[in-house]
Amino acid sequence: MKEIDSIGIVSPQKWSFSSPLTLQNGCVLPQFELMVETYGTLNADKTNAVLICHALSGNHHIAGYHSSNDKHPGWWDNMVGPGKPVDTNRFFVVGLNNLGGCHGSTGPLSINPATGKAYGADFPMVTVKDWVKSQAMLADRFGIQQWAAVMGGSLGGMQALQWAIDQPQRLRHALIIASAPRLSTQNIAFNDVARQAILTDPDYCQGHYAQQQRIPRRGLRIARMMGHITYLAEDGLGKKFGRQMRQQNFQYDYNVEFEVESYLHYQGDKFADVFDANSYLLMTKALDYFDPARDYAGDLITAVSAIQAKILIASFSSDWRFSPRRSQELLDALVAANKPVQYIALQSAHGHDAFLMEDPDYQAAIRIYFNNIATELTQ
Amino acid sequence: MKEIDSIGIVSPQKWSFSSPLTLQNGCVLPQFELMVETYGTLNADKTNAVLICHALSGNHHIAGYHSSNDKHPGWWDNMVGPGKPVDTNRFFVVGLNNLGGCHGSTGPLSINPATGKAYGADFPMVTVKDWVKSQAMLADRFGIQQWAAVMGGSLGGMQALQWAIDQPQRLRHALIIASAPRLSTQNIAFNDVARQAILTDPDYCQGHYAQQQRIPRRGLRIARMMGHITYLAEDGLGKKFGRQMRQQNFQYDYNVEFEVESYLHYQGDKFADVFDANSYLLMTKALDYFDPARDYAGDLITAVSAIQAKILIASFSSDWRFSPRRSQELLDALVAANKPVQYIALQSAHGHDAFLMEDPDYQAAIRIYFNNIATELTQ
Repeated sequence: MKEIDSIGIVSPQKWSFSSPLTLQNGCVLPQFELMVETYGTLNADKTNAVLICHALSGNHHIAGYHSSNDKHPGWWDNMVGPGKPVDTNRFFVVGLNNLGGCHGSTGPLSINPATGKAYGADFPMVTVKDWVKSQAMLADRFGIQQWAAVMGGSLGGMQALQWAIDQPQRLRHALIIASAPRLSTQNIAFNDVARQAILTDPDYCQGHYAQQQRIPRRGLRIARMMGHITYLAEDGLGKKFGRQMRQQNFQYDYNVEFEVESYLHYQGDKFADVFDANSYLLMTKALDYFDPARDYAGDLITAVSAIQAKILIASFSSDWRFSPRRSQELLDALVAANKPVQYIALQSAHGHDAFLMEDPDYQAAIRIYFNNIATELTQ
Repeated sequence: MKEIDSIGIVSPQKWSFSSPLTLQNGCVLPQFELMVETYGTLNADKTNAVLICHALSGNHHIAGYHSSNDKHPGWWDNMVGPGKPVDTNRFFVVGLNNLGGCHGSTGPLSINPATGKAYGADFPMVTVKDWVKSQAMLADRFGIQQWAAVMGGSLGGMQALQWAIDQPQRLRHALIIASAPRLSTQNIAFNDVARQAILTDPDYCQGHYAQQQRIPRRGLRIARMMGHITYLAEDGLGKKFGRQMRQQNFQYDYNVEFEVESYLHYQGDKFADVFDANSYLLMTKALDYFDPARDYAGDLITAVSAIQAKILIASFSSDWRFSPRRSQELLDALVAANKPVQYIALQSAHGHDAFLMEDPDYQAAIRIYFNNIATELTQ
């Protein structure tokens, strides 16, 4: 644990919801739980709450440490904490593990009340709209009528956009970072390959691997390794690893030879240890399905026309998975719909992962934005 | 078979070499065979021969059809044939399946004379330098002292460059298309994921799957699907498939839903049917290892200093696997080494695959280049 600047030790809480939730696909979850972490203090009139939505592999643990032995803080600790861009001295920040996730919220690893066994592949597919719905139920529990801001990167940014569309009166700001109004064909294609790696892993067992005491590690590992390459910029990867080899001479076998291979294997193995394959599958489908314009005959301008929140869009120059051009599409639609929107096109060598990285310009921009939100609160 | 403009029915020939070949890794192949296809007629002084080197998944069958029932011609039929850019009325064109391949040349599928069984994973790893060596032995057989040109795209372009470096007096021109003087870190990373998909497929059986009557289809399929995405441009893929779905509504399951998924599965399945996994593995390693500057303390300018051939470099704007910038690196080194070099930066929406596609500008450029070579022949 690194104490400086961190919010310190935090504890997640599980929230139970016993009212049924009807999902976009028609399935009804009779009850569900959400794993939640909060930072800072909710003010008396409950106007300082910020919801942070996670991306594909994220969870509720955004900032701080779970114990003094923790080596790594939450996934956005550089963004959220006392004195940080999202300043927990002023804002009450809420993080949650999304429905369908594998970090404590109801998902494929949970017990299906109908069968008494883990859902596994029987867990219904959830969408970004479903997540917004469940997050609104969480807001109700806190008594939060309106978020000061809903914020996220990548798939998290999609949730922020969907919030602004579906619940226009319940948020004052949406921060949509390194995201897109829908996936590109190439993105869908990469997701498909990742899913196929898992689905065709003999240990997948039609999604009921847990019952067989098996884990489709191979598939998860391949999916993550491939994904990882696409989250990084070619130049950044080149600068970090180049053609460095572990030994001076070619070995002429298939063991790890280039440093970048070692790095990828480490990332893949680590992910396969901690992430549930069924959760991964359904989260990639949520990404594929996300397309708010679809409900409006493909017209994004109409789709965003109900938005009342102010929008901040941010993109990163070397992000090729969610390129600045995709942010520009959303910007164009919002401008055409006459919505108040700001766009920050940041320079970065870190590719899609830049949204998670420390960067002075990026953090200054978010800090200024939240300073303005804080000023609004006092007016 | 489409008769117009095609060279028509062609037949491959197997050539046997009984003198031992020492490979770069120190292994000795006591004997080997190369599957070869030729088009056009070798002139009396044997000055009109063009060697075409194949890329990762190519083979000896460059142009024409193997039978009148053949639906598809050779892989570069739009480039090679009577009246085509590489005009077989004027040039004698040689294609071969590289050593280590799976289309008739000695490779993992061949019988290891030492054991009487198929080599499988015991086939020694071959490099681009080894291929040049074996191709030079093939030239000797034809009595070709000097190729009019050695030509290839992608990994084939690497062979053309290696020819110019290793056998400076044996070629007058090298055409290096959609290639690079070495792979980028990102390229090595993608190759690693492809290999890992195959190596961790339970049907891989340490490379001796044939003996077990098994085929690591899953791994090959994933490798090819991922590779395929990287061979195409994001824009081209978007224009071709967009977010088109097979059914109007979301199905909320993991069956094929978007058309791009269907396309990728088809490509992956087809490849897994025809390509040998061990060949795929060793060819990706040949790609990773290729780095002519390595023998010259990393200095590409010194590496190319012995070149006597004239060089044509061509790149395609939307190729992100072997981007124009990589061609520019080679161009810069050749210019610095004071070598005669031309560079054509072509516009294309087809990504890396553009080098295989019909395109008027591209084909006109190659046609003019070969017209000039033909003119040299008559001088």
